[in-house]
Amino acid sequence: MKILGIDTSSQVATVAIMDEDKLIAEYTINYKKNHSENLMPMISEIFRSCDMKVDDIDLIGVCIGPGSFTGLRIGVATAKAIAHVRNIPIAPVNSLEALAFNMNFSKGIICPIIDAQRSDVYTSKYTWESNTLVSIEEMSVKNIDDLIDELNDRYDEIVLLGEGVDIHREKLNKLGNIYIAPNSHKLSKASSVCQIALQKYESGDTLDYKKVEPLYIRKSQAEVQYEEKLKRMNNNE
Amino acid sequence: MKILGIDTSSQVATVAIMDEDKLIAEYTINYKKNHSENLMPMISEIFRSCDMKVDDIDLIGVCIGPGSFTGLRIGVATAKAIAHVRNIPIAPVNSLEALAFNMNFSKGIICPIIDAQRSDVYTSKYTWESNTLVSIEEMSVKNIDDLIDELNDRYDEIVLLGEGVDIHREKLNKLGNIYIAPNSHKLSKASSVCQIALQKYESGDTLDYKKVEPLYIRKSQAEVQYEEKLKRMNNNE
Repeated sequence: MKILGIDTSSQVATVAIMDEDKLIAEYTINYKKNHSENLMPMISEIFRSCDMKVDDIDLIGVCIGPGSFTGLRIGVATAKAIAHVRNIPIAPVNSLEALAFNMNFSKGIICPIIDAQRSDVYTSKYTWESNTLVSIEEMSVKNIDDLIDELNDRYDEIVLLGEGVDIHREKLNKLGNIYIAPNSHKLSKASSVCQIALQKYESGDTLDYKKVEPLYIRKSQAEVQYEEKLKRMNNNE
Repeated sequence: MKILGIDTSSQVATVAIMDEDKLIAEYTINYKKNHSENLMPMISEIFRSCDMKVDDIDLIGVCIGPGSFTGLRIGVATAKAIAHVRNIPIAPVNSLEALAFNMNFSKGIICPIIDAQRSDVYTSKYTWESNTLVSIEEMSVKNIDDLIDELNDRYDEIVLLGEGVDIHREKLNKLGNIYIAPNSHKLSKASSVCQIALQKYESGDTLDYKKVEPLYIRKSQAEVQYEEKLKRMNNNE
């Protein structure tokens, strides 16, 4: 079974093809967040590199969020389009879980951090228990200072990764017992997305393309501003 | 500082560009071991994807072995050619260490296994101590059955990865306390090569291109056969 993995939920665009036996190809670009222009050529490139075509794909794994609103829409729309044409299922993958999977079989508590703007981050916590990545805290939006206070109070070793780490690195560096993932592991890799998608497929946890939606934990800035504007207009009536 | 990472020491061809702050691009192909045809187009592709050219590179990290003789020669020759033209240093990276680095901050003892043919493997052991990957056993060529006996006698949790794992999976699966890396992490990634190259650069551990040679732990099959033939000829004289 061939899986196409896609993640454009952050500054990185990453695509991969995997089957049950091996990673066949993976391509990651972290340069000018221009996912709408880059994503399809990247997918074409990896198909070309291994003499495959879109007809060979049996499952799509795509990060549905949390993350950048525009990035999520590009990744999810592309996955849905291919799944529709090919009539294959989609395994929706949480962006925080995909990041945590990068730190495979890691020690400590893995805490992925994705920028949610205005000093907030999307975050959650994972750990490796008996060869399995286990979520030990529901994902949520937190103020970075609250997260730092909380991590400061923990005894366990904390592994930090995700693009939020670079944005808030100065504050995070003040924490004691932390390990910040190196650049090789810090941002999303589609091979991790494929691997989680395969697990989901094996446990029957896939969706028809029509049912896949981006996971917007909170409203976009545009929506917030629009609602505030509507409120002001109503108050002035 | 921009680093170009290259590894063609196994069935995988993998290239990446990284600077001190981030992984900029990474491309991995694990399809038909055709490194002589694939490597330069892969390097061109990642340069193109991030508007860079070979003139922007300040350091090359390349896996020098152990591994496939032909693969090693292709990777090392390409790295030396670029380093010569650009007059930049090379950080030679051990293929086993690059594999171990994939299992970043992992629990247990990391044991990478690279096929050395005739039931032998190139192997070594690493562990993460205080945020650093530490070699705890010199690399060597071992018969796979001897390695399995040795691992069987250990109490620690063992993390296995590398292409040798798939070749000897049936035997390895009989071991108790092991974790086999998932496909996403099992084979070489040039981002890990870049990361080790950066560490080597920072500790002054780089070489002029003229001094970089593939690390052939033992003689190639062709050399062994040639020597045997010479011996037979001498005996018959």
